[in-house]
Amino acid sequence: MRLGVLQDAAERAFDDRLARLDAALAAHRPLDLVLCPELFTTGYGPYARVAAHDEAAARTAEGALAALARRHRVALVYGTVDHGTGDHGTGGRRNAARLIDRHGRPLACHAKRALPPFAVETLFAPGTATTVVDWEGVRLGLLVCFDVEFPENVRAAARAGAELILVPTALWDRVPIVARKVVPVRAYENGVFVAYANYCGAHAGETYLGESVVCAPDGRDLARAADTPTLLTATLDRDEIARARQFLPFLELATTTAAAP
Amino acid sequence: MRLGVLQDAAERAFDDRLARLDAALAAHRPLDLVLCPELFTTGYGPYARVAAHDEAAARTAEGALAALARRHRVALVYGTVDHGTGDHGTGGRRNAARLIDRHGRPLACHAKRALPPFAVETLFAPGTATTVVDWEGVRLGLLVCFDVEFPENVRAAARAGAELILVPTALWDRVPIVARKVVPVRAYENGVFVAYANYCGAHAGETYLGESVVCAPDGRDLARAADTPTLLTATLDRDEIARARQFLPFLELATTTAAAP
Repeated sequence: MRLGVLQDAAERAFDDRLARLDAALAAHRPLDLVLCPELFTTGYGPYARVAAHDEAAARTAEGALAALARRHRVALVYGTVDHGTGDHGTGGRRNAARLIDRHGRPLACHAKRALPPFAVETLFAPGTATTVVDWEGVRLGLLVCFDVEFPENVRAAARAGAELILVPTALWDRVPIVARKVVPVRAYENGVFVAYANYCGAHAGETYLGESVVCAPDGRDLARAADTPTLLTATLDRDEIARARQFLPFLELATTTAAAP
Repeated sequence: MRLGVLQDAAERAFDDRLARLDAALAAHRPLDLVLCPELFTTGYGPYARVAAHDEAAARTAEGALAALARRHRVALVYGTVDHGTGDHGTGGRRNAARLIDRHGRPLACHAKRALPPFAVETLFAPGTATTVVDWEGVRLGLLVCFDVEFPENVRAAARAGAELILVPTALWDRVPIVARKVVPVRAYENGVFVAYANYCGAHAGETYLGESVVCAPDGRDLARAADTPTLLTATLDRDEIARARQFLPFLELATTTAAAP
């Protein structure tokens, strides 16, 4: 499959964001699935903007993304404010990752479980589920940002059969270790593909790292962005999963010989 | 505390190894604790030599290491073949890490849990325990080599209160990701110090990576070796643990918001 990962400037208004995604999808056709950053419909930084993003606003923004998916015949995973249409049931706002198919139809919604101690996260209730879904014959796992820093969350998705784990994120430049080391290690220690879509540039007092990345099941980078807006692309060969697991069968051994999971 | 990490040539005979460790300890005084590589008493590569290392041979080799600890008033952690004196009870040979104090007395023995699918490992029965022990007021966790590649094992040691995790290893140059990314990530995702003592050079058909490393609780390298024999040193400031955990309380959040451990 041909994967795209959008890295966008953190400060952009949504209409501008959408127009640039539209142009990037046209320029990089054909892509099968494109991953966008965390809270793509609002931006991560501005507390007031996220707080004001009610159900009507979410419907409008996500409707525009669905139209884009249909126009380019591409599946999308993006960060959004979910108001209860996710797998987590109703009630409470969630910092979520939604998967929509090439027809713009919602297939899965993952609510971020690990909410870091930052202001904007107080707007959300934490998710409680591992989210793995079949899409065009591939098992996709969904996580949001800080979720991927907990090895338990990635292991749970890999155990549920995930082959490719998709992570919308909003990572500051203060913690480059996450993009440079944690994400490759999650791929390596589970024998899965991991894609991580970040923002870049300054916004609301923080600078975002960029360095969106796609990692192979042996932990190597297949594609990595610098610190400017871009659409990364990578072709994923599923045979790499079996090859990595043949060399070091992490999932199998984690069940039998590691500390109790 | 002042930590030393010995990186030694993989092919050396034990007597030569011991003489060089003796000289290095004299040259770097005062050190509080020194970590040595996996199967330090036999070398990792040679199946026949490890197989021939019976209880009498182990007693002789480990007696010499105890004498060295006494002479230099330094605690040691080293890899050895354990024949049943470890915490795992009797029966079966174990690929073990042993801690001895400044008087040469054995304080703890960790039997490697995760045995990779390599020939020499078929000589061993897997361990089943997490090993964390108090030493001079510091909580030390012991792991061996492949154990550290499973996040479950490091999390279990951190949950048991480990502040510094000591890992004798024998890592080939085919998998540099372990020394370069996995070890720093284990420190970061648990807010602990991690030390990793490797071999370097060629032996029995494999080349060892070197890159022994000491990582701080925020995941940064405090000291990292190249690919030649050396004694790395690092001063560990325990306040760094609290500072890292205040920024991102991984252990606390892993209990409440991550996938079930």
